[in-house]
Amino acid sequence: MARRPGRRPGNPNTRDAILTTARELFADRGYNNVSVRQIAARANVDAALVYHYFDTKEQLFLAAVQAPIDPAVLITQILDGDPEEIPGRLVRIFLSVWEDPITGQAMRSLLRRAASDQQTALLVKDFFATQVVGRVLPTVEGLVDPPELPIRASLVASQLFGVALVRYVLQFDPLSIATTESVAAAITPTIARYLLDDDLPLPS
Amino acid sequence: MARRPGRRPGNPNTRDAILTTARELFADRGYNNVSVRQIAARANVDAALVYHYFDTKEQLFLAAVQAPIDPAVLITQILDGDPEEIPGRLVRIFLSVWEDPITGQAMRSLLRRAASDQQTALLVKDFFATQVVGRVLPTVEGLVDPPELPIRASLVASQLFGVALVRYVLQFDPLSIATTESVAAAITPTIARYLLDDDLPLPS
Repeated sequence: MARRPGRRPGNPNTRDAILTTARELFADRGYNNVSVRQIAARANVDAALVYHYFDTKEQLFLAAVQAPIDPAVLITQILDGDPEEIPGRLVRIFLSVWEDPITGQAMRSLLRRAASDQQTALLVKDFFATQVVGRVLPTVEGLVDPPELPIRASLVASQLFGVALVRYVLQFDPLSIATTESVAAAITPTIARYLLDDDLPLPS
Repeated sequence: MARRPGRRPGNPNTRDAILTTARELFADRGYNNVSVRQIAARANVDAALVYHYFDTKEQLFLAAVQAPIDPAVLITQILDGDPEEIPGRLVRIFLSVWEDPITGQAMRSLLRRAASDQQTALLVKDFFATQVVGRVLPTVEGLVDPPELPIRASLVASQLFGVALVRYVLQFDPLSIATTESVAAAITPTIARYLLDDDLPLPS
């Protein structure tokens, strides 16, 4: 292929430049309001090169957020099976990501950056809205009233991220040393209530 | 008073030097295992000067953690009155600290530092164990089995810090824009269950 200005396929910094630009645009405008073409133009590369490195816009977003997990895969695991068991599966899979040495380390790092850096906080917020809530939305009809899902999901996030913060980052005793199964047993009813309970007074 | 080496009462950096030393020793050894005399010796000042600046060891600890609130005052407010209403008062007072512009800003800053800096995380953990759980312990007998209080308190912390993280730091919609009262109504039953429910399966 003929080289064009800014095409730089042999430059090892090109991938990083694309990621930096993607982070800026996703954080500024939100995932749904940014195209791969816009990111490529701003990074001064061809859109085909972005696809070469990241395959899809979604994979580019995962890389931009430095997400150690692909929510699409986990959400399929959580939603697959008895709907009554969704809260239990959600809690177990969430905790298993944090327990795993590799993904756990990456999640702690992501939480630290999100707490201290505004751009990362915006990315994580948008990631949650589009890649988590947005993905679950079409699949839970009949289980959760769709307009209620965003507030229910953010209450769920408050308990799950709270356990992550207190158990894995701040390491409050004795929650930090309890078994994963016993922690899951204590918080699963909270998640079930936030996600599914018709009597929950929804914050508004 | 005669000046002695290291006494430096006129040095504007003395207060900061005491605080830095206090932070190191409290984080390394824990509040209960450090004396004001040890902090003074390590900071190369007279213990009387530490008391001059900070009044009590506890006030020195609050300053070392940069805690914008005195837990002793808030805990008294929370425990005072109908025991059944403790969870509701706890949630309302916790949220009011975060809603207030001055203390809210300081709490966000403290949470950010605790998430990203190991020394601050150790201070916050020790602060929670000694200044929060340790203070509540003598007053809740008959309400909570004392050996159960630390694990119940860390579950409570997981939900309260989780709401703080998701609502005030990451600002997930729509939890970030809901009224304080409506958020309190949704999470108070969770706090009641963690603190008081005999059927809660305690993590261990």
